[in-house]
Amino acid sequence: MPTTALQFARDNQTRFLSELKNLLRIPSISTLPENRAYVRHAAEVLAKELKRIGMQHVEIIKTGGHPLVYADWLHAPGKPTCLCYGHYDVQPPDPLEEWISPPFEPTVRDGNLYARGAVDDKGQMYMHIKALECLLHASKGKLPLNVRVILEGEEEVGGEGIARFVREHPERLKADFALISDTEMFAPDLPTLCVGLRGMIYTEIEARGAATDLHSGIYGGAAPNPFFALCQIIAQLKDEDGCVLIPGFYEGIIAPSPEELAAWKSLPFKEKEFQRKEVGSLLEIHGMPGGFIAEGAKTVIPARALAKISMRLVPNMDPKRIFKIYKRFVESLCPKGIALTVRLLHSGDPIVIGVDNPYVKAATAAMHDVFGKDTVFVRSGGSIPIVGDFERSLKIPSVMMGFGLPDDNLHAPNEKFHIANFYRGIESLIRFFDRLGE
Amino acid sequence: MPTTALQFARDNQTRFLSELKNLLRIPSISTLPENRAYVRHAAEVLAKELKRIGMQHVEIIKTGGHPLVYADWLHAPGKPTCLCYGHYDVQPPDPLEEWISPPFEPTVRDGNLYARGAVDDKGQMYMHIKALECLLHASKGKLPLNVRVILEGEEEVGGEGIARFVREHPERLKADFALISDTEMFAPDLPTLCVGLRGMIYTEIEARGAATDLHSGIYGGAAPNPFFALCQIIAQLKDEDGCVLIPGFYEGIIAPSPEELAAWKSLPFKEKEFQRKEVGSLLEIHGMPGGFIAEGAKTVIPARALAKISMRLVPNMDPKRIFKIYKRFVESLCPKGIALTVRLLHSGDPIVIGVDNPYVKAATAAMHDVFGKDTVFVRSGGSIPIVGDFERSLKIPSVMMGFGLPDDNLHAPNEKFHIANFYRGIESLIRFFDRLGE
Repeated sequence: MPTTALQFARDNQTRFLSELKNLLRIPSISTLPENRAYVRHAAEVLAKELKRIGMQHVEIIKTGGHPLVYADWLHAPGKPTCLCYGHYDVQPPDPLEEWISPPFEPTVRDGNLYARGAVDDKGQMYMHIKALECLLHASKGKLPLNVRVILEGEEEVGGEGIARFVREHPERLKADFALISDTEMFAPDLPTLCVGLRGMIYTEIEARGAATDLHSGIYGGAAPNPFFALCQIIAQLKDEDGCVLIPGFYEGIIAPSPEELAAWKSLPFKEKEFQRKEVGSLLEIHGMPGGFIAEGAKTVIPARALAKISMRLVPNMDPKRIFKIYKRFVESLCPKGIALTVRLLHSGDPIVIGVDNPYVKAATAAMHDVFGKDTVFVRSGGSIPIVGDFERSLKIPSVMMGFGLPDDNLHAPNEKFHIANFYRGIESLIRFFDRLGE
Repeated sequence: MPTTALQFARDNQTRFLSELKNLLRIPSISTLPENRAYVRHAAEVLAKELKRIGMQHVEIIKTGGHPLVYADWLHAPGKPTCLCYGHYDVQPPDPLEEWISPPFEPTVRDGNLYARGAVDDKGQMYMHIKALECLLHASKGKLPLNVRVILEGEEEVGGEGIARFVREHPERLKADFALISDTEMFAPDLPTLCVGLRGMIYTEIEARGAATDLHSGIYGGAAPNPFFALCQIIAQLKDEDGCVLIPGFYEGIIAPSPEELAAWKSLPFKEKEFQRKEVGSLLEIHGMPGGFIAEGAKTVIPARALAKISMRLVPNMDPKRIFKIYKRFVESLCPKGIALTVRLLHSGDPIVIGVDNPYVKAATAAMHDVFGKDTVFVRSGGSIPIVGDFERSLKIPSVMMGFGLPDDNLHAPNEKFHIANFYRGIESLIRFFDRLGE
């Protein structure tokens, strides 16, 4: 049975790639209000495609932010139901000048497809749709199992809309497991399932000094400088080894089991090449808006300055508790003459997934067929908050079968997707769905 | 003799204000390359006006950057020659949203004229031109003394062009003293001469971590964060009391004399109202470009981050020496995995001016006639590097007779000029020129 579908996949590789390029041309940057219409357009393109391949009940669902795209095919009684999740929004492309080819003009170089969203997550999400197309075509409109598809346009900005939808309408996404392709392989040619995710909180500290910007010649040294205040605070948040200094930060975290540690040691990981000089630093500064940032010189003491700071959370770190102790600690470091506001922009729980279920087994078998190798189980440093929402509201596990590579430049200039992995991903998914329908 | 000129000044106040508004409508922001044509346009408007009022040899002089405007009237043999200096470029207006009326739409509220450049320095520079107009009109084309006018368009970006011109063509600016109106009065109605200026160095630190921006989920904690590095460095540049920690920074500085200190104590200065919590902090951070600075969240470890940092210099601090020890200290604080570049954007010498000369005496007498009060001598926290250039290359002192007010919002949103001071400044200058011609 999968033979026809696999053959169809091979015969249509060029078309699939060309369709993906069209999708990547849409600058669906969810964090930029001015790109709202593009995000909407990407949703419409996907809804149309889901309808075209034979999925049913295709619907664009409104949220408070960017819309969801839903579709299903539920005519395989007795077979499991898979909830295919993906996101069609992308990160901003800046700094633009570092892209070799423009971020929204997909370009092939050395067997890779370069574009913002190539691997995160348009390319990987599109593998699901193409695998479903191959199966629907091979079986004249039938699938080997029940499938629901839910695509969101807010993953890169916290995923508020889908989180609420999952919480409020769990019956509309009823399934036995979720399938997510938004992670990476541990190494090229090494099939990988992700079984753990870090949580995160993304925050903003605003420091205000004088009521208005001041001339630094006249007032310098007398008026409080909010940038200096932020630097003083940030320098006290972690030490030189990357250890976070917020009191209580590491409280109660669950260490990996000796078995896991042993398994990880066998992975082909050269710590030296990764330039890891510190372990466990979970706090990063992403930008410090405010003041004068153009070329040249302006002698002003800015009235306000901001710092965008995120923390990644490991198992058993509660985002609410971490934000609370972080906020309290930052406020305790506030210098005289400065007013602080500490804001939480979004958060997600850390996740550990069990591997003892038929969906994980079918996934490892399917990937073995394609890659000829045993699957490795890893935890990712990234955060996919929806996995926690699925676990809590739908009571289902997630299979995180990703085909990105460690050097795919996620969130960075020159993001790419290895084209061979796009095709191998589609084949793996066809075999995976087929096995679950046996 | 000055009676006719003073009467003409009073009769033409409305026209003078309206002309100043036209000048303020030109966004001659010298630091922005895209505003280059506006800076040039401001120079042309001023050259035309100098010609119209009866000044001679009017010329727009090219420099490597923005042009100089020159004019003279040299037909008063035996009388002193005054070099009138001013600048027609302005600071950038950001943050725009804090302006009550747009920065380049001059607006009158409560007796003040609001616009970028109203007081710094278009409004004050224009007082010179209008005082000269009144005198030329009253005496049918004659002035009581010899006058050269030199206006620059790069004061806010370091004044490279005029510095070179003064150095290379001192004979073209030969004069007995310079007159500069780019400072402020100590308090409303208190005539003030500035007799000391701080020098400055304006620098940029660039910190580079990884070769490219990285996804903080995957690489966070492993890749060096250039913002964290800058925060660590900056937090070590001065202590909580504002004391600069660069070794050797305060070496050899000249303290004010006991007489000066005593005179300053008599000034109407409420230290508490000024919110001075620290004395002598000379180091300010103006902005930290790089990374993600838009609304919302982007989880990236930026490859590079910058900090714009300036230091104000008091008498006997050599800008070259200070930059050298600053650079060495910053580099010594560089964390592992980070590469630093420390750049000097521009610099100026600190200045102390003698008060025992006929020009200062004429200025105090002229202001006494207008304000009915004795002049106070103060030092300014600001930097006017051209005063050092005049001293070195032309061997002349500068009379810094300014009519700004402490709350005029220099370099900040809602910059203004008290309109009464615009008129009193013109009257003071007419009387000043007239006294020197007696």
